[in-house]
Amino acid sequence: MGEIRKNEMYRLFTYDQLMEMPSRYRGVLLNKVSGVKPANLIGTQSKDGQTNLAVFNSVVHIGANPPYLGFILRPTTVERHTYDNIKATGVYTINQITTQIVQQAHQTSAKYDRTTSEFNAVGLTACYHEGFQAPFVGESHIKMGLQFEEEHYLSCNDTRLVVGKIQYLLLPEGLVEEDGNIALEQLDSVAIGGLDSYYTIEKLGRYAYAKAN
Amino acid sequence: MGEIRKNEMYRLFTYDQLMEMPSRYRGVLLNKVSGVKPANLIGTQSKDGQTNLAVFNSVVHIGANPPYLGFILRPTTVERHTYDNIKATGVYTINQITTQIVQQAHQTSAKYDRTTSEFNAVGLTACYHEGFQAPFVGESHIKMGLQFEEEHYLSCNDTRLVVGKIQYLLLPEGLVEEDGNIALEQLDSVAIGGLDSYYTIEKLGRYAYAKAN
Repeated sequence: MGEIRKNEMYRLFTYDQLMEMPSRYRGVLLNKVSGVKPANLIGTQSKDGQTNLAVFNSVVHIGANPPYLGFILRPTTVERHTYDNIKATGVYTINQITTQIVQQAHQTSAKYDRTTSEFNAVGLTACYHEGFQAPFVGESHIKMGLQFEEEHYLSCNDTRLVVGKIQYLLLPEGLVEEDGNIALEQLDSVAIGGLDSYYTIEKLGRYAYAKAN
Repeated sequence: MGEIRKNEMYRLFTYDQLMEMPSRYRGVLLNKVSGVKPANLIGTQSKDGQTNLAVFNSVVHIGANPPYLGFILRPTTVERHTYDNIKATGVYTINQITTQIVQQAHQTSAKYDRTTSEFNAVGLTACYHEGFQAPFVGESHIKMGLQFEEEHYLSCNDTRLVVGKIQYLLLPEGLVEEDGNIALEQLDSVAIGGLDSYYTIEKLGRYAYAKAN
């Protein structure tokens, strides 16, 4: 068994050392340590029809049967238009970010006021499906319409896990392979590093279901 | 505003159509739709010293102040060694998967019995930090030691969000840039597509904090 030491090759930061870092520095660092993340835009609409669009790097698979996705919502100590709209209408969309719309997607993270639609501000197209109140992103290759299912308040830091059920899944025709696979690399899917870095992906391999022995 | 139609370019799947798919097919498909995910190994140890290592694609950033990470745990209807060990010892490690260890990392998803250490079975090195009971992965470039903080049971599908506080962060010396940034592309970080596909990453850009106007 090896032993991790404070040697010249690795740098060890303890919890106390992390907490002593300047806040912004720690934020940049700690948003990177878990690796690259999925890059999605969440689209919502208020009860009176004001659309909102925001980049999220925290969408997480919750289950396939039935189909659920979750995402982490930051503290509601400042206005959270996405959250307010989801609570008001019960629905939202998750739309995958591609290489073509990375800059517009990132720009949605700016603090626009409630009366500004990020769709208009950054130049992305709001699309609708009959009877579903939340706007999809026309430019995204994978679009999903979700219905709010449950939320969990994380008392450790005032964040929330928001879980929704996939009501609609929109994919380019002919994309799904015989076994249900989607070749994400053919969709110009990007990954996010932390809050500010974007990556293209290149396939390394697809492996069989692993078996012991 | 555009309108999404069931035309020749896009295929629309409703919730009912998704639920009618064969279970395995739906699982493959729905694990891909949220985009590429972070690729991490979670290391634990039972009270009597049996080590366990498992690949997770659901690690999510919860907060930087204090530093919290979460991950989604599948239903405990079958043995979940990782969960049992975390509950027993209160600690675990999250270790980033690199291109060099992708195949070993994937192989940890096989159903080994409780008396088999995946470290030994797949050929990865368990490393320890003084006084911390969970094993780190020697081959990983980013290693974190976490203390269990809170868990949330998702009643919609019997999964759990497990949240931990980062007690130790281990990084290659000289990696952290002046502003706290880590260049993930220099660490051979990989991304996971669904449950079976692995991707290398290439930097597209790092963008400034977005401002309105």
